[in-house]
Amino acid sequence: MSHSNRPLVGIVMGSDSDLTTMSEAATVLRNFGVPFEIEISSAHRSPARTSEYARTAIERGLKVIIVAAGGAAHLGGVIAAETTLPVIGVPIPSTTLQGLDSLLSMVQMPGGVPVACTSIGKPGAINAALFAVEILALADQKLAAKLVAHKEELARGVSKKSARVKREFQF
Amino acid sequence: MSHSNRPLVGIVMGSDSDLTTMSEAATVLRNFGVPFEIEISSAHRSPARTSEYARTAIERGLKVIIVAAGGAAHLGGVIAAETTLPVIGVPIPSTTLQGLDSLLSMVQMPGGVPVACTSIGKPGAINAALFAVEILALADQKLAAKLVAHKEELARGVSKKSARVKREFQF
Amino acid sequence: MSHSNRPLVGIVMGSDSDLTTMSEAATVLRNFGVPFEIEISSAHRSPARTSEYARTAIERGLKVIIVAAGGAAHLGGVIAAETTLPVIGVPIPSTTLQGLDSLLSMVQMPGGVPVACTSIGKPGAINAALFAVEILALADQKLAAKLVAHKEELARGVSKKSARVKREFQF
Amino acid sequence: MSHSNRPLVGIVMGSDSDLTTMSEAATVLRNFGVPFEIEISSAHRSPARTSEYARTAIERGLKVIIVAAGGAAHLGGVIAAETTLPVIGVPIPSTTLQGLDSLLSMVQMPGGVPVACTSIGKPGAINAALFAVEILALADQKLAAKLVAHKEELARGVSKKSARVKREFQF
Amino acid sequence: MSHSNRPLVGIVMGSDSDLTTMSEAATVLRNFGVPFEIEISSAHRSPARTSEYARTAIERGLKVIIVAAGGAAHLGGVIAAETTLPVIGVPIPSTTLQGLDSLLSMVQMPGGVPVACTSIGKPGAINAALFAVEILALADQKLAAKLVAHKEELARGVSKKSARVKREFQF
Amino acid sequence: MSHSNRPLVGIVMGSDSDLTTMSEAATVLRNFGVPFEIEISSAHRSPARTSEYARTAIERGLKVIIVAAGGAAHLGGVIAAETTLPVIGVPIPSTTLQGLDSLLSMVQMPGGVPVACTSIGKPGAINAALFAVEILALADQKLAAKLVAHKEELARGVSKKSARVKREFQF
Amino acid sequence: MSHSNRPLVGIVMGSDSDLTTMSEAATVLRNFGVPFEIEISSAHRSPARTSEYARTAIERGLKVIIVAAGGAAHLGGVIAAETTLPVIGVPIPSTTLQGLDSLLSMVQMPGGVPVACTSIGKPGAINAALFAVEILALADQKLAAKLVAHKEELARGVSKKSARVKREFQF
Amino acid sequence: MSHSNRPLVGIVMGSDSDLTTMSEAATVLRNFGVPFEIEISSAHRSPARTSEYARTAIERGLKVIIVAAGGAAHLGGVIAAETTLPVIGVPIPSTTLQGLDSLLSMVQMPGGVPVACTSIGKPGAINAALFAVEILALADQKLAAKLVAHKEELARGVSKKSARVKREFQF
Repeated sequence: MSHSNRPLVGIVMGSDSDLTTMSEAATVLRNFGVPFEIEISSAHRSPARTSEYARTAIERGLKVIIVAAGGAAHLGGVIAAETTLPVIGVPIPSTTLQGLDSLLSMVQMPGGVPVACTSIGKPGAINAALFAVEILALADQKLAAKLVAHKEELARGVSKKSARVKREFQF
Repeated sequence: MSHSNRPLVGIVMGSDSDLTTMSEAATVLRNFGVPFEIEISSAHRSPARTSEYARTAIERGLKVIIVAAGGAAHLGGVIAAETTLPVIGVPIPSTTLQGLDSLLSMVQMPGGVPVACTSIGKPGAINAALFAVEILALADQKLAAKLVAHKEELARGVSKKSARVKREFQF
Repeated sequence: MSHSNRPLVGIVMGSDSDLTTMSEAATVLRNFGVPFEIEISSAHRSPARTSEYARTAIERGLKVIIVAAGGAAHLGGVIAAETTLPVIGVPIPSTTLQGLDSLLSMVQMPGGVPVACTSIGKPGAINAALFAVEILALADQKLAAKLVAHKEELARGVSKKSARVKREFQF
Repeated sequence: MSHSNRPLVGIVMGSDSDLTTMSEAATVLRNFGVPFEIEISSAHRSPARTSEYARTAIERGLKVIIVAAGGAAHLGGVIAAETTLPVIGVPIPSTTLQGLDSLLSMVQMPGGVPVACTSIGKPGAINAALFAVEILALADQKLAAKLVAHKEELARGVSKKSARVKREFQF
Repeated sequence: MSHSNRPLVGIVMGSDSDLTTMSEAATVLRNFGVPFEIEISSAHRSPARTSEYARTAIERGLKVIIVAAGGAAHLGGVIAAETTLPVIGVPIPSTTLQGLDSLLSMVQMPGGVPVACTSIGKPGAINAALFAVEILALADQKLAAKLVAHKEELARGVSKKSARVKREFQF
Repeated sequence: MSHSNRPLVGIVMGSDSDLTTMSEAATVLRNFGVPFEIEISSAHRSPARTSEYARTAIERGLKVIIVAAGGAAHLGGVIAAETTLPVIGVPIPSTTLQGLDSLLSMVQMPGGVPVACTSIGKPGAINAALFAVEILALADQKLAAKLVAHKEELARGVSKKSARVKREFQF
Repeated sequence: MSHSNRPLVGIVMGSDSDLTTMSEAATVLRNFGVPFEIEISSAHRSPARTSEYARTAIERGLKVIIVAAGGAAHLGGVIAAETTLPVIGVPIPSTTLQGLDSLLSMVQMPGGVPVACTSIGKPGAINAALFAVEILALADQKLAAKLVAHKEELARGVSKKSARVKREFQF
Repeated sequence: MSHSNRPLVGIVMGSDSDLTTMSEAATVLRNFGVPFEIEISSAHRSPARTSEYARTAIERGLKVIIVAAGGAAHLGGVIAAETTLPVIGVPIPSTTLQGLDSLLSMVQMPGGVPVACTSIGKPGAINAALFAVEILALADQKLAAKLVAHKEELARGVSKKSARVKREFQF
C-alpha cells in the first residue's frame, strides 16, 4: 500500500493482468489523497482468500470495495455476498467478447445483493475510484471540496480543448 | 414523500411509467427507515428541471441519488454532470431491446463523471436502494446493523426455501 | 430426495423459481435410475451454505454437480471453486436478456476452474442430466446400456414423427 | 472556423479525440461551401457550456447541429433537449463495444425529443454533413444543384471503379 | 391524405402492417398542421414504384421523406439513393430480433448517401415527424413557434406528472 | 407428399415443431406446382437417417434441399456435408435467443461446404421455397414465367394496399 | 472477365474494397471452369446502374448472381427485387460491427423476395461461388463430377492434416 | 500421440488452425499424466471420418471427447450424436464475430444430445482438459489427489501474485 494512513478503499482484482486497467483507479485515489490497498484475489482460484478479504473488510476499516474482473466476472458478486460495504464493479474487457460478458456477469446481480457497475475498462476504473471518493466525501468536507474542484477542472479542460481545436484545426 | 424526516435519498425517474419498477426501491428504503423523495424529471423533456434538481441536491440534504431511465437513458449522466453526490443508475427495460440500450446508455460513462449501475429492471431497483443504504450505513450504526440482519435474513430465506423444496417436491 | 440410494448427482439452483426448469433434469435422472438430491443455495444470498455444500460434496458421495442460475449466474463458478467434482452449468433464461447474461456469466470461466455449460433453459436441464449420466456410465455398464437405448429411442422417435407428418400433413 | 460567413452548421463533439472522425464532416461542409463551426463540449464534463451552446444556437444563426459522441453518448440528447433545431447524431466507435453502445445511446431517444442518427464512425460523419446540406438545400437552389451533382459524381465514381476492376483485375 | 394543402412530408412504409407504428407520425404532423401523404411501397416487392416515388418527390413538392421499414430494412437507403431530399428512417421492430436488424439495416449507410434514423418503433415514428417539423420550421416562423410551445408543453407535462406522483403515490 | 410427380425439393426439418414455420415453404412450392417431399430428421437424434437422406438425395431425383432447424442448428451443415445439391437453410426462432443462435449456427459455415440461409422464421420459409423455384426455373421456362408473374403480383399487391390505405386511413 | 465463354455467374459488389474478399469467389469459379463477370455497382451510389444490371441479367445469359456488400448491405435485396435469378448474398465484415450489420441487412429479407446468404467474409465468398456451382451442376454433369471430386478432396485434405499433426506435433 | 498408454481422452478439432488454441488442452492433460490423442476431423469436410471417429471412440477406450470448432461449430453436436461418451465443446473464436457464433452453435444443443461447453478460446481449452481430468478422477484416486493439489496451487499462485503486486507496484 502506498499510503501511511489506514486504507479506506480496497481495490480487488481477479488477476494481476487487470492491474493495467486498475492502476487508473489507484491514480485517482492517490490524487484525492484517499488511502487504499490493492489486493489480488480470485473468486475461482482463491475462494477462501476472497471470502476472508470480504468478511474482514469492515473491521479492517475499509469503507468501499472496488472490484475488477473479466469474463465470467464473479468477483464482485462473491465479495458483495460477504460484506455490507458498498461494492463497485469494474468490468475488465475480455479477449473475445470485448467485455460484454464481464459487464453482464457483474451488473445483472439478483435483487438483495447489490454490485454497482461502472463502464468497461479504464474509464470504469477511473469512475469507480471517483465514485468511491463521492461516497467518502459525504463525511469529509475536504474531499467534497476536492470533488467540486475536480468537476470545475473537467469543465475548464473542455474549454481549453475547444479553444485549441478552434485555433489550430485547419479544414 | 412517506417520511417526516428530511429525505436522504432522491429517486428520480424519467417517466412516471418507470414507477412500476422503482416502487421496489421505495419499498426497500421505507423498510430500512431511510427518508427519501420521488421525482419525475426527464433529461430530454425537462432539462432545466433536471439540472436544477441535481444542482440543489446537496443543499437540500440528499446523500445519494438513484436514477431510473430507459432507452437512450441519459438521465443518470445528466444528473451526475451537475452534482458530486453518488449517482446510482437503474436501467429500465425498454420495449424493443429488453433494456440492453438502457444498460449501455447508463453504464458506459466516460472517465470523470461516474454513474454506478445496478441490474436491469426490478432487481436493479431493489439493489440501487440497498446500495444507497450501504452508503448511508457508513455513518449510521443502526443502518449498518439492519444491513447485517438483512443479509442474515437472505440466507435464512434460502434455507427455508431449500427445506420446503426438498420436502414437497415430488419427482 | 426421491430415491433411497445415496445421491450421486447434486442439482443446485440459486432460486426456487429455477425449479420449473430444473425439474426436467430431475425427471431424466429418475428415468435413468440415478439417485440425486435437490438443493437451493445462492452464491449471493447464502454464500456460506453454498461453500459448505461444495466442500462437502465429495465426502457425501456426490460424483457430479449440476448448477442452475440466471442473470449474473455465479453459482456454478462459486461451486467449482470449492470442489474438484465436474460441475455442469445450466443457464436459466432471465427476465430481460433471455438468458444471454446467464450463459455468458456461466460459460466464460477463466482457465483453471472449469464449469461446462449446456443450453439455456429446459433443453439445457435435460442435457445436463444426460451429461451427468454419461459421466456415471463410464463406471456403470447398466447405465451405459441405458444410454445406448436412449439414443436408439431418440432415433426411433424421429422416424415415427417423420412417418406421421408424411401421413397426416396435407399441403 | 474556416469560413468568413456566419456558420449555419455546428459540429459539436464530446471530446477532441472525436476530431479524427468528425473532420470528415468538416471536409464535406467545406466542399459544399457551407459555413460551419466546431465546438468541443461534453454533456458530462461541461454541462453548462453544452446547455448554453444549445440554447443560443438559433440566435447565433445555426440551422443544423451535428453531434458526435461515444460510449454513453448523451450529447445529442442533451442538446436536442435545449433547442428546436434539427440535431443529427454521429455515434463514435468506442474502445470496447465498437460503437454499439454509442449507437443505442444516441438513437433510442424517447418520443418527443428527436435526434436523427447516421452510421457509426466516419461514414456517419460524412453522411451527417450531407444530411445537413440536404436540409439547407431546401432553401438554397445552389446547394440543391450541388447535391444533384454530388449524386451524379457518386454514380460516375462507381462506373470508373467498375471499369478499372474489370480491366485490371486478373483472376 | 387529410389536408387540402400540397403535402410537404411523405411517409413511406414497406408494408401496411407498419401503419400501426407510423400513424403516430401522422398524428404529430397533423397536430402541427403539416400537410403530408402516406405511401406504401416496398424496396423489394415494388422497386419501380419506390424508385418513381423517390425520383418525383422534389417535383411533387415534398421537403422531407420519412421511411419506415423492418427486417432487412432497405427502403430508406433505396429512396435516399434516388433523391436529395432529407430521408429520415424509422426502424420497425421485427418479429424475431426486436428491431435490431431493422435498426442496423437502416442506420449503417455507407458514406455518400445519408439516411438519418430515429428510435425503433413508435417513439421513432413520433420523433421522425418532429424532426421533419424541425426541418420545415427553419423556413416557417409559425412552425418554429409551435415547436417552442411543444417543448414547453413537454416540460409542463413532466411537472404535472411529478406533482401527481408525489401526491398520490403511497409507499 | 401431395404431388404425384417425383419430388424435386426436399424439405427437411429437425423437429416436427418446425412444421408450423415450414408449412409456409410447402404452400409456396405447391402454388408453383413444384413436387416436394417433407422429412423430419435430426442431425443429433437421428444422424444415420439424416446422413442416409443426404447421400441418397441426388439418386432419388432431388434438385434442392431446404433445411430448417433451430438453436444449435447443425442440420443444414450436416446435410451439405453429404451432398453436392444446393442446401438452403431456414433458421427457426428458438425459445430464448429469438433465432440469433439458429441463424449464426446455420450461416457461419466454413469455406468449402456451403449452406445458403434465408431469414429467420416464416419469411425465411417462404423465401427458401421461392429460391428453390428460382433454381429450378433455370431449366424450366414455365416456372420462370410463373416467377415473373409472381413478381408482378407482389408489385400489384403493394399498389392495392397503398391505394386502400390512402382511401381508408383517417388521421 | 477472365474467360472467353459467356458469363454464367455475376459477382456484384458495392465497393471495390470488397474485392479483397470476393476474389476468393472468383478463384473458386475459375477453378471450376465457370465463366463469370465482375461488376462494381452500389445500391446507393449507382441505383440506376444496379437496377439495369439486375434487369438485364437473364437476357445476358447469367444464371446466378453473387452479391457482396457491407454495413447497411442493401445490394442483394435491391438486385433480387429486379430479377428472378437466384441471388446469393455475401456479407462483408464492416469496420465497426464485424459484419453483424451486413449479415442482418442481407439475410432478414421479407417473404417474397429471397436472398440466400453465406457466411461473413472470405468463407462466405468461397461458399457463394461453390453454391453457384452446385446450382449450375444441376444441368451440367461435368460440373457435378467436379463437385464430387472437390468434396473428396476436402476429406483427403483433412486426413492429410490430421496425419501431419499427429506426426509433427510434440506436446 | 505423445504417451505410450492407450488414450483416454480424444481431442478433436475441425481444423489444424485450432491447434494453437487446443495445444493448451494437450499441455494440461500431459501435466496430469492423462494419455490422449489428437484428431483433425471436420463435421463438414470429412463427415464419414468424423462419424467413424465418434462411433469407435468407446471401443478404442476413450472416456471423454474434447471437441473444438469455430463459426458454425457443428463438430461437437455431430460427435455427440454418435457416441454416449461425454463430449466437451470448446468454442474457437472466429474471425468476424469473436466466437459468439461458435459459442451459440455449440452450446444451444437440443434436449437429448448433450454437449457441455467451456469458455471461448484458450481458457476454454484449459478448462475442457481439466473437466476431462475431473471426470477421469472419479475412478482414479491419484488423479483426484492431483486435482486437489492443482487447486491448492491455483490459490498459492494468487497469493504470490498479490504479494508481488503489493510489494512492487508503486502508485
